[in-house]
Amino acid sequence: MSYPEKFQGIAVQDHNDWTHPKKISYEPKKFNDYDVDVEIEACGVCGSDTHCASGNWGPKSLPLVVGHEVIGRVVRVGPKCHTGVKVGDRVGVGAQVSSCLNCDRCNSDFEPYCAEFITTYSQPYPDGYVSQGGYASHIRAHEHFVIPIPEKIPTHLAAPLLCGGITVFSPLVNNDCGPNKKVGIVGIGGIGHMGLIFAKALGAEVYAISRSSAKKEDAMKLGADHFIATKEEPDWEKKYASTLDLVIVCASSLTEINLEQLIKTMRIKGRIISICVPKETEQLNLKPFQLSGITIGNSQLGSRKELIQLLQLVADKDLKIWVETLPISEDSVHEAFVRMEKGDVRYRFTLTDFDKEFHN
Amino acid sequence: MSYPEKFQGIAVQDHNDWTHPKKISYEPKKFNDYDVDVEIEACGVCGSDTHCASGNWGPKSLPLVVGHEVIGRVVRVGPKCHTGVKVGDRVGVGAQVSSCLNCDRCNSDFEPYCAEFITTYSQPYPDGYVSQGGYASHIRAHEHFVIPIPEKIPTHLAAPLLCGGITVFSPLVNNDCGPNKKVGIVGIGGIGHMGLIFAKALGAEVYAISRSSAKKEDAMKLGADHFIATKEEPDWEKKYASTLDLVIVCASSLTEINLEQLIKTMRIKGRIISICVPKETEQLNLKPFQLSGITIGNSQLGSRKELIQLLQLVADKDLKIWVETLPISEDSVHEAFVRMEKGDVRYRFTLTDFDKEFHN
Repeated sequence: MSYPEKFQGIAVQDHNDWTHPKKISYEPKKFNDYDVDVEIEACGVCGSDTHCASGNWGPKSLPLVVGHEVIGRVVRVGPKCHTGVKVGDRVGVGAQVSSCLNCDRCNSDFEPYCAEFITTYSQPYPDGYVSQGGYASHIRAHEHFVIPIPEKIPTHLAAPLLCGGITVFSPLVNNDCGPNKKVGIVGIGGIGHMGLIFAKALGAEVYAISRSSAKKEDAMKLGADHFIATKEEPDWEKKYASTLDLVIVCASSLTEINLEQLIKTMRIKGRIISICVPKETEQLNLKPFQLSGITIGNSQLGSRKELIQLLQLVADKDLKIWVETLPISEDSVHEAFVRMEKGDVRYRFTLTDFDKEFHN
Repeated sequence: MSYPEKFQGIAVQDHNDWTHPKKISYEPKKFNDYDVDVEIEACGVCGSDTHCASGNWGPKSLPLVVGHEVIGRVVRVGPKCHTGVKVGDRVGVGAQVSSCLNCDRCNSDFEPYCAEFITTYSQPYPDGYVSQGGYASHIRAHEHFVIPIPEKIPTHLAAPLLCGGITVFSPLVNNDCGPNKKVGIVGIGGIGHMGLIFAKALGAEVYAISRSSAKKEDAMKLGADHFIATKEEPDWEKKYASTLDLVIVCASSLTEINLEQLIKTMRIKGRIISICVPKETEQLNLKPFQLSGITIGNSQLGSRKELIQLLQLVADKDLKIWVETLPISEDSVHEAFVRMEKGDVRYRFTLTDFDKEFHN
């Protein structure tokens, strides 16, 4: 049996051997009236994928197909769908596949903060079915989380926008990134490199903040106006004192950075927004009074509305994120996982050629 | 010798016997071209006074005259003053008496965050003179920090606005407190009771948040629309989930409150602003991911501009804070200190009758 009865995917079998996933066949969730089925063409490789695959974020129900930066073609549309999605459309699915769509948060375009949020893979739906991700032949999701992709964006460059991209774009637009604002991006990796591109495209003066100057040349090409190598510039926080209106921390942990120094670079009323999902045990190491005149917080994903806004911006300004493609297979997922762990990618992987692996 | 060569004040002599201050005579700071001398008529008693007097915030240069909620009449104006201040004017001096008035922060009406901030008492000026406060016959301050008091506000009700009042008003106006906003005030003490009055006057729907219901009746009179007794209402954070746009924490420490519960009551993009100055060693006990969708920060004092705005609001709306007066003397300062330590005041002391103690 194959689609629509069964999906196929490259699944993690064992957290202790997570870099060797295997191809499996599995039942999709029950098809509901608002659901859309997507035949997948490409999927980005996100840091969350390795965290979940490795068990870093706790043990998951296995086997598990990860991947939540999905691009594909619509092959089935539920009878009650009303977003206008049609069979044949090129669409994307990000890291969220469901929410109540009825609470104050959902009604205010903050559905990533809905109490009934269901993440694209590894989370049980109310009926017990554990969601499965996008390293797969197909994905089934509520239409609200199925986003039209503008014609102009190539598939392999669209995929990473669906999670990594929106995760850094949402706090930028929610915190007034734009002309006459000085915006810092801490951590120039998969997400941070997109942060530089988007902050620049939104009109801000952009400061790339990294430990060493290894990525300086890249950062300047990506859109940074300034580059700060915190381990190489003594007293950098004095040089840039009271400068930044907004900082997005894209490092993997808030304790990895010297918050005390970073705070000194902030203008009054400035905001430090972290998008990292550190280990559960991590604590903020900060004296309240150090936050004088500024605020700090965390942001997660972004709404459908913001995703549409981001995709339009990328299409209109012809923005190009930096992506390395790998044709999907067990071996490629292994390679992507191993290289992600080493930080050996500039700056994002997209798995491609799903037709050869799943649809031939 | 007396004024202008000498000032008189009630001074803490010893941190170990801080509740027994003594009347002293002392040299004022050198009079500069932008300075104003004020003959003091009244001074509020602020929590900072007891923290500094007791040595809670570290040892201070003694003897020390505390007090930074000063109201009095101008008796001398420096030759270069240009704010319009005149001999005879009734004015106030708050917790700040100097800043550079030339940096980006000063130029943006954020002078409480100026690197050259000098606090009204216990801090050395560049020439080494240690500033002295308002439990005294006179005070000398830069004109920028000498604020005109509207005719309509009685002196004893104006004094506490100069530090306690502005400290809670500034984060309210800086974080969009107003109509259609739900604003929580945590800690219903000297500052918190003013927070209820001001938040209501600014048009917000006001939530008083206290451990017990002991102050419920007061809080409702002061302007609260809702009262939450956190130790008496099990699951209060569920009842008020996703409700508040802004919370001002007026408790004496951020670790005294259950931030985890408080965060659950916040709407997305909500802000928790603390105005407490806890012990130096206090650390935020928080996981970064708990701050998802919200931000947290600290605010200190307020600008001249905001003080003028607050005084105008209080005058225009005839707002009445709750004040107990004590005629100044060594004994009265003792009583105020002892009762402040016990929380035995509803809600603020103003020392009055300075003419009898100092000016007869």
